[in-house]
Amino acid sequence: MTTLIFGHQNPDTDAITAAMSWAEFQRQLGNTDVEAVALGKPNAETQYVLDYFKVDAPRVVESIPEGGHVMLVDHNEFQQSVVGIEKLTIDAVVDHHRIANFTTAAPLYYRAEAIGSTNSVICNIFKEHNFEISAQLAGLMAAGLISDTLLLKSPTATPRDKEILPELAKIAGINLEEFGLAMLKAGTNLGARSDKDIIDGDAKSFDMAGQSVRIGQVNTVDLDEIYARQADLTAAMQEEATAEGYDLFLLIATDILNSNSVGFMVGSGKDQIEAAFGQTFDGNNRIDLPGVVSRKKQVVPQLTAAFEG
Amino acid sequence: MTTLIFGHQNPDTDAITAAMSWAEFQRQLGNTDVEAVALGKPNAETQYVLDYFKVDAPRVVESIPEGGHVMLVDHNEFQQSVVGIEKLTIDAVVDHHRIANFTTAAPLYYRAEAIGSTNSVICNIFKEHNFEISAQLAGLMAAGLISDTLLLKSPTATPRDKEILPELAKIAGINLEEFGLAMLKAGTNLGARSDKDIIDGDAKSFDMAGQSVRIGQVNTVDLDEIYARQADLTAAMQEEATAEGYDLFLLIATDILNSNSVGFMVGSGKDQIEAAFGQTFDGNNRIDLPGVVSRKKQVVPQLTAAFEG
Repeated sequence: MTTLIFGHQNPDTDAITAAMSWAEFQRQLGNTDVEAVALGKPNAETQYVLDYFKVDAPRVVESIPEGGHVMLVDHNEFQQSVVGIEKLTIDAVVDHHRIANFTTAAPLYYRAEAIGSTNSVICNIFKEHNFEISAQLAGLMAAGLISDTLLLKSPTATPRDKEILPELAKIAGINLEEFGLAMLKAGTNLGARSDKDIIDGDAKSFDMAGQSVRIGQVNTVDLDEIYARQADLTAAMQEEATAEGYDLFLLIATDILNSNSVGFMVGSGKDQIEAAFGQTFDGNNRIDLPGVVSRKKQVVPQLTAAFEG
Repeated sequence: MTTLIFGHQNPDTDAITAAMSWAEFQRQLGNTDVEAVALGKPNAETQYVLDYFKVDAPRVVESIPEGGHVMLVDHNEFQQSVVGIEKLTIDAVVDHHRIANFTTAAPLYYRAEAIGSTNSVICNIFKEHNFEISAQLAGLMAAGLISDTLLLKSPTATPRDKEILPELAKIAGINLEEFGLAMLKAGTNLGARSDKDIIDGDAKSFDMAGQSVRIGQVNTVDLDEIYARQADLTAAMQEEATAEGYDLFLLIATDILNSNSVGFMVGSGKDQIEAAFGQTFDGNNRIDLPGVVSRKKQVVPQLTAAFEG
C-alpha cells in the first residue's frame, strides 16, 4: 500500500514542497512506494512556484482509508491534518512547529527542529545522508524556506536557514532576491481572492486552554487593501466561527514589505489578545502588532500563555 | 541557567546512559552548560554498568524550578517525567517510544526513531555530525542498547541496532556476549530486592482510553523465583494501585534467557489483557506471553488497542 506524504490543511508553499522533498528523500532511501499529496489546492504563491519550476500540483486527498500508512510534514496537530488521522498509522513526522494534540500507539520516526521551515529540516537530513538534491527540487525547497521566513526576514529564520537558503538557490540557479520577492508578491494579489479565501486560505485551528481558537494570516504589500475589506472579512469570520464552533477567530494581516501586522477578531478572547501583545484594539477593532510576522513564533505561544493565564 | 538532561522515572540503563551521551553530544556541539541528571537511583543492572566503566551515577533530581530548561531522553510522556514538567521549557527530546501526552507551547528539537534504544538514536546523531565517541562513552551507550534489546534478542532490535552495537563494543573494547550477559544478570538478582522494588523498579504509567494503566517489568533468569513471591508481589501491587489510583496494574516477568514472559494483574482490565494477547489467565492468575520481551512493542500498543476497542 502506498504511503501518503502530506502537509497541513490549507497548505502553504512549505507544506506542499516539503511533501515533495520528503517523498524524494524516501525514494533515495529505498522506500519507493510513496506519494506526495496535499490536503488542499495550492494557493496563488505556491502555484507561482510550481509554474516557475514546471511541476504539477500534488493530487488533493480528502480522506484516507482506515489503516493507511502516512507521513506528516510541516504539521503534527491532529486538527490540522486529514480527517480521521487517528485511524491511520503515522510512520514519520518532519516538522518545525510546537508539538500538541499529537499521539501515536507505536514508536515512529519524528524529526523536528526549531528552524525556519520544514524544508530546512529536510535539507539537513539530505546532507546527513549525502543524498543529492536536483536543481528543480532545490528550487522547490528554497521556495518553502522563502515562504515561511518571508525571505529570511521573519524572526523564525535561524543562522542555519541563512546558510541553507543560498546553497539551495545556487543549486536551483535562481536569483534569491528577485525570485523571492516575485513569489511572495504573487501571494498577495488580494483583489482576485474572495473574503472566505482570505480568512481561510492559511488558517489553522488551535486548542488553547480548552478554547477553540482559529488563527488566519494573510500577506499583503498594502494594508489599506485589507482595511477596505475589513467589514466584509469580519462578517465572514463571524459566520464561519458560528458554523464551526470557534470560540475565537483572529485574522492577522501581515505587511511583508515592512514586517508589521494588524489583527482583527471575532468571538471571545479580546482580553487575552491584548494581554498577549501588550497592545489594545482601537475604535476600528484593529490591534497593531508591530514587528509581528510569524504566527508560530510571535502569536501562538504568547496567546496560548495568555489563555492559560 | 544549566540545562538539565534526564530520562524517565524509575530509570533503566538506557535512560541513565542516554542522558550522559546526549549531554556529551551537546558539549561537543558547543552547549557546555548542560548536566546529565536522573529521576531516580540506578538499578542493579545500571550500577553494574557504571561500576564497570568507572563512572559516577548522575545526581538525582526530585523537582526543577519553574521556567527551567530541560532536555528529555528516552521518554516524552509527561506522567513518566519530572513532576511539574508542564511548567518547564523543553528544548529537546531524543527518544524511541510512541508519542503521547506530550505538548509544548513552542517549537523544539525532537528526534525519535523506531529503533532499539535511545542510545542508538544518539549514536546516529554523533555519526551525522562526525563527533567522536570516547571508549568510556561507547561502553555506556552499548550498555543502554544491550539493556533495552536484551542483547539484540528483543523484536525492538532493528538491523541498524545490529550494526551499531558491535561498533560501540569495538570502541569500548568489550566482549559483547560476555559483558552483555554479565550486566543483564546483574539486574536479575531478585533475592536482594524488596517486593515494592520489583513491582516499581521499572514501572511506567500509561493513559489508555481514559484508564490509568501501570505496567511494570522485571527481568529474571528463573521464573520460579517470581512464582514463589507471586502472592506478596500481587499484594504490593494491590496496595499501590489503591494508593495511586491505578485502574490496572500489570506486572510482566521476563525470562531473559528464553525470551518469554508471564503476566500478573490487579484491578480491572482482565478482558482487555486476554484480548490483547490472545491468551487467558490460568487458575494461578498468570497469563503466558510467549515470545514477549518488549513492553514497548509487544505490550503497550496491543493493550492500548484493546482498551480503545
